[in-house]
Amino acid sequence: MTDAHPLDLPEGDLFGPDNLPYGLFTTAETPERHRIGVRYGAHVLDAGAVAAALGSEHTALLQAPALNPLMAAGRPVWDAVRAELRGWFTDRAHAAVVTPHLWSLSAVTLHLPFAVADYVDFYASEHHATNVGRIFRPDGDALTPNWKHLPIGYHGRAGTVVVSGTPVVRPQGQRKPRDETVPAFGPSRRLDIEAEVGFVVGTPTQLGTSVPLSAFRDHVFGVTLLNDWSARDIQAWEYVPLGPFLGKSFATSVSPWITPLPALDAARTAPPARDVPLLPYLDDAGEAEPGGLDLRLTVTLNGHTVAEPPFSAMYWTAAQQLAHMTVNGASLRTGDLYASGTVSGPEPGQRGSLLELTWGGSEPLELPDGKRAFLEDGDEVVLSAWAPGPGGTRIGMGEVRGTVSHSA
Amino acid sequence: MTDAHPLDLPEGDLFGPDNLPYGLFTTAETPERHRIGVRYGAHVLDAGAVAAALGSEHTALLQAPALNPLMAAGRPVWDAVRAELRGWFTDRAHAAVVTPHLWSLSAVTLHLPFAVADYVDFYASEHHATNVGRIFRPDGDALTPNWKHLPIGYHGRAGTVVVSGTPVVRPQGQRKPRDETVPAFGPSRRLDIEAEVGFVVGTPTQLGTSVPLSAFRDHVFGVTLLNDWSARDIQAWEYVPLGPFLGKSFATSVSPWITPLPALDAARTAPPARDVPLLPYLDDAGEAEPGGLDLRLTVTLNGHTVAEPPFSAMYWTAAQQLAHMTVNGASLRTGDLYASGTVSGPEPGQRGSLLELTWGGSEPLELPDGKRAFLEDGDEVVLSAWAPGPGGTRIGMGEVRGTVSHSA
Repeated sequence: MTDAHPLDLPEGDLFGPDNLPYGLFTTAETPERHRIGVRYGAHVLDAGAVAAALGSEHTALLQAPALNPLMAAGRPVWDAVRAELRGWFTDRAHAAVVTPHLWSLSAVTLHLPFAVADYVDFYASEHHATNVGRIFRPDGDALTPNWKHLPIGYHGRAGTVVVSGTPVVRPQGQRKPRDETVPAFGPSRRLDIEAEVGFVVGTPTQLGTSVPLSAFRDHVFGVTLLNDWSARDIQAWEYVPLGPFLGKSFATSVSPWITPLPALDAARTAPPARDVPLLPYLDDAGEAEPGGLDLRLTVTLNGHTVAEPPFSAMYWTAAQQLAHMTVNGASLRTGDLYASGTVSGPEPGQRGSLLELTWGGSEPLELPDGKRAFLEDGDEVVLSAWAPGPGGTRIGMGEVRGTVSHSA
Repeated sequence: MTDAHPLDLPEGDLFGPDNLPYGLFTTAETPERHRIGVRYGAHVLDAGAVAAALGSEHTALLQAPALNPLMAAGRPVWDAVRAELRGWFTDRAHAAVVTPHLWSLSAVTLHLPFAVADYVDFYASEHHATNVGRIFRPDGDALTPNWKHLPIGYHGRAGTVVVSGTPVVRPQGQRKPRDETVPAFGPSRRLDIEAEVGFVVGTPTQLGTSVPLSAFRDHVFGVTLLNDWSARDIQAWEYVPLGPFLGKSFATSVSPWITPLPALDAARTAPPARDVPLLPYLDDAGEAEPGGLDLRLTVTLNGHTVAEPPFSAMYWTAAQQLAHMTVNGASLRTGDLYASGTVSGPEPGQRGSLLELTWGGSEPLELPDGKRAFLEDGDEVVLSAWAPGPGGTRIGMGEVRGTVSHSA
């Protein structure tokens, strides 16, 4: 162990000055005081305290007890705050002010960093949708006729979005095996994960207006990892005709860290070629920035890597999802969260759900601690990711961690 | 015109001392100050002002700028406040204090009375579900196999729940006629209503717990009318496999008045006989209070009555919906809103949507101002309702009014 200064990061640290994700933390001394934190290496900066000490014009936003006021302030303010934060970490003239407000990650408690307004979940991976279609509807077309014309999505339960680390209680509910005529009731036997990427809306809109593809950057504050826990047996019985409900609504876990959108500028990449012409509001061929993001996800189950889903393979982009979600005039609120849908790539080891990894449970995973078709009580799932940063560096995304608890 | 004292209501007034719905209002003099109002006849009582003048122990709750703090306070407080309010209107000893705080309805602006947390929409009318099944899936079974085993529901968009009177902008979106191969884009051509009843959650719950049928009264603060505006062409193209999204999310209108649950005690009625045995968490045969509500809805279009849907015909009750919504451990928040789904009765004149009233548009309504298959720009829809009250009286529910605007 060396006594390196906390502002000096090890070579290749995933949370350097080009990253600077936002979170919300408390300390053991003042557990009632929620503070905006900025992650730097293995530390969290009390951003409001430094802002006050340095007389920043953004002090009020950074001293708020949640990220929502900053998120509502809009792109010019976000960019100004980010430039200022970067200076605090990189200009050693500030070191004497900054250092006392760096907390070790191990010494703080991280909280859900913003109040979730509406939560929408998409279904944007062609590989995932094709796999699910083949598993659930083996006699039909894998993709529904609308799939390549619009990013399919639905509203989820905002009130059960929880921060990483929150125990996930195995849901109870109705499930009906295919060969029985009436449903039984009990704890889900096919509890699954969905490895997803979430997008956090900052700038709101008025009812009756839409957000074009080109305005994505003005509205989206940042990006997070998300685990859309799914009870496949409950979902399979309930979802026709109005979609998933209790099979999803018991918990959705998000990372405590929101990666600012500009931290992922070097990860911008072209989405896959489109097979059918898109309507103008979704046609991103002429956009200045490519809409895809080269995020490399990793899913571990009890410490063992079970999948490495590539976000760059997603058919629909986050900008297209935002444009679609608002094209009917639906308004946005600060704190709206929308997720990509399960990230699955073309290879078997790139699938972001156990449903796909075990092909509906028929091909269990062989783990050192036993076979797994679906999750067992006590299982811990961790999602992590990194993206290419400037000059060959890597930008880390905050983990999403969750352990399955026995039904209440 | 007579100069009757505002505390003396005309015989048969729908908003007497057994009703007392809650709302939120502002006046022209102080448009920034939202006040909790209680409707009495054609007046609104400034409840916080009277509470303060009389030194009520509930002054803080009644002076809040939204109903949420009162809604969070729970059934014992709700019942105590209601008893106190009733006394203010019926005990003439208070008249000198109360009367100055009565505002004419025509002199105030009514607002969305509470901050909506999550919004869930059910599908609880067997008549509606059967009609829709026959219209959309003429070759299949009208009801899906799960329909009589669980109250089907899905999450809607909480951020676009608007108060009665808010113009409804005709949504744009993708729609694909059955005989074409690719979708077109434009304003919805099949804009519809759904006449529904909404239930407003007050007392929250913890993640991982459920609300049994018997605890319905402890959690539900009150009842409102709701119009779930629906773009049938957008919905038909998008809804497979994850359910309605943009066909619904552009607007959901609610009444400015929340009817307290006890005001509907005399309207309690047994739901229809159940055709299949229910799982224990949904089986209400042994409940102390019958779960149905005898609410008589009226739908008018440009002033003409087009339907009179009976809420008593709903197969699934609000208590069953709450039990189902939480059986997987999903938590409730103060401000959660859940709606019944379209209220349709067995008779043609009792159908709560134009889709049903015009049988998919094939049998347009003949109105004095022309034929209507679906809504035209400028059309005004009003939902109203009453329920039996104590001793042969009637309890009115606040109207939901909305006019269709041209696409932006």
